[in-house]
Amino acid sequence: MTLKYNNVYINCTSTVTGPYEGNGPLGNYFDKSFSDLYFGEKNWEDAESKLIKEALEILYEKTGATKFDIDLFISGDLSNQLAASNYAYAGEEAPLIGIYAACASSTLGLALAANSLERKEIEKVVCTVCSHNNAAEKQFRYPVEYGGPKPKTTTFTATGGVAALVSGKKEGIRLESATIGKVINSNISDVYHMGAVMAPAAADTIYRHLQDTGRSVNYYDLILTGDLGIYGKEILKEYMEKEYGITLQNYEDTGVMLFNLQKQPVYAGASGPVCAPLVTYGYIFSEMKKKKLKRVLLVATGALMNPSRVNEKESIPAIAHAVSLEVLA
Amino acid sequence: MTLKYNNVYINCTSTVTGPYEGNGPLGNYFDKSFSDLYFGEKNWEDAESKLIKEALEILYEKTGATKFDIDLFISGDLSNQLAASNYAYAGEEAPLIGIYAACASSTLGLALAANSLERKEIEKVVCTVCSHNNAAEKQFRYPVEYGGPKPKTTTFTATGGVAALVSGKKEGIRLESATIGKVINSNISDVYHMGAVMAPAAADTIYRHLQDTGRSVNYYDLILTGDLGIYGKEILKEYMEKEYGITLQNYEDTGVMLFNLQKQPVYAGASGPVCAPLVTYGYIFSEMKKKKLKRVLLVATGALMNPSRVNEKESIPAIAHAVSLEVLA
Repeated sequence: MTLKYNNVYINCTSTVTGPYEGNGPLGNYFDKSFSDLYFGEKNWEDAESKLIKEALEILYEKTGATKFDIDLFISGDLSNQLAASNYAYAGEEAPLIGIYAACASSTLGLALAANSLERKEIEKVVCTVCSHNNAAEKQFRYPVEYGGPKPKTTTFTATGGVAALVSGKKEGIRLESATIGKVINSNISDVYHMGAVMAPAAADTIYRHLQDTGRSVNYYDLILTGDLGIYGKEILKEYMEKEYGITLQNYEDTGVMLFNLQKQPVYAGASGPVCAPLVTYGYIFSEMKKKKLKRVLLVATGALMNPSRVNEKESIPAIAHAVSLEVLA
Repeated sequence: MTLKYNNVYINCTSTVTGPYEGNGPLGNYFDKSFSDLYFGEKNWEDAESKLIKEALEILYEKTGATKFDIDLFISGDLSNQLAASNYAYAGEEAPLIGIYAACASSTLGLALAANSLERKEIEKVVCTVCSHNNAAEKQFRYPVEYGGPKPKTTTFTATGGVAALVSGKKEGIRLESATIGKVINSNISDVYHMGAVMAPAAADTIYRHLQDTGRSVNYYDLILTGDLGIYGKEILKEYMEKEYGITLQNYEDTGVMLFNLQKQPVYAGASGPVCAPLVTYGYIFSEMKKKKLKRVLLVATGALMNPSRVNEKESIPAIAHAVSLEVLA
């Protein structure tokens, strides 16, 4: 189901990253990049939470808003029990909606923010997501210090935090519509090939978005998936063609864009909840403000991977949530 | 912030439980109670997912709806990455919003459902939550087979699944308003005393609800917290009195109601995301339909406990989300 919005705008965004992202090809587009992965904190979990706190601080600075001006926060991350978000928000003044859609959390948050703005009591919503490579590796696989080798289809969880101020004030980028995704389980259980796990979910959401809106793929100047990586991106193109007879045009994947895949040791590309919004709020919004891109369909993709279920030989469900973004006239 | 709703109703609910809940004092109010904890599945995780699937099946049967009639699903549970929900929803036809507020997920889901009904495209929303004692113990503490002793302030995660059909059709119980909670960290790190961890969050949400609506505590025939247990319940009463000068009247806690605390080995009472809605959709709605209770404020309470953070000596944040429920005139 695709929800259309008449007056929802992403007024301002902030982006904070780790060193890999800062040294990558889009490094100049981010507000702040730390030079190590601890950010002065004593463990990966505190560091992960700090990414949200820093993104909020920068957003407050940029907008002149204080925490008392925000009506609602919506946040998601990869940590169990959304610990990164929940620890970051203790002390904030507004209520928090915690969401989990793995690496599709950013666009789900934007959709919920847009829905909540239908209420006159809610004027300003801030959406955040974050991920931290070392925290994610420790939780989902093995601590990076173990140095385990990985196949080339693996993606590399990006380290960063983002915040977006969403309101009815006509300023910034328009959030024109959102397509909330269904859970799709394609019976793939390879934890080192999340691109393959997520591609069918991305395809389902893109297809339903186009069906619901009556649009063709070239309505968009860019269709941007979240974190399929170089292999998942090709799988999606083939899958869309075979399953729906749709040839993706003007298509890119933020997982392929965030890092320099030739020079940085990131396997098939970037992943993590922060991947799609880092690339979008940083580089893509900059291109949109220059009117080089006018309409962008951002389809963040999430592998709903649970280590216990994978150890029990279960396949991995996936989900993708899309938002249609437009330049203001 | 408290959101008021003019036309939101919980039309129908379904409740599925494990044997402890079925043998408890409210056993007769549940739709289905399994006699063991595996429900014919091969592990706790599959059993936990089955609780949602069964609740959905019963809801479809009761309402005559099929999965094609539902516009949106909202689900939360305790399992990492919401695995219980995500595995249950693979194969469903409608989009899924995954939420995490620990044991406060049920009321957060109802609030989001009510918000989404502001959109004309969305007519029928189904909210589910579940929890499974053995799955929760295994994930958060130790597998129950280890037989570790616990202090008497411990609560016992209830096993069950619930589903609620929420729509604009004037039938069932009215969802009159919702107060979404803030993250409150009161610097308590005792994982065996979640009642103490959550009481300040419950107090904050109740206080803000009363402030926002201009109501006094006796506006409600019953104020019902989620899973504070016998000790947490007393802490809340004292805290409300000292912090806000409010004497809680007509107050009960679903964690104290679900089990027979004298006869069942459940320490300080029941907990888990399913605790509050099991008691509410089972017993309380039955009392409301008999007009014995007309106005109920349900305040589900969540301890946002992450085992890694606790091992790192961090205190535990908490959150409480409230919904005001009314009998139809």
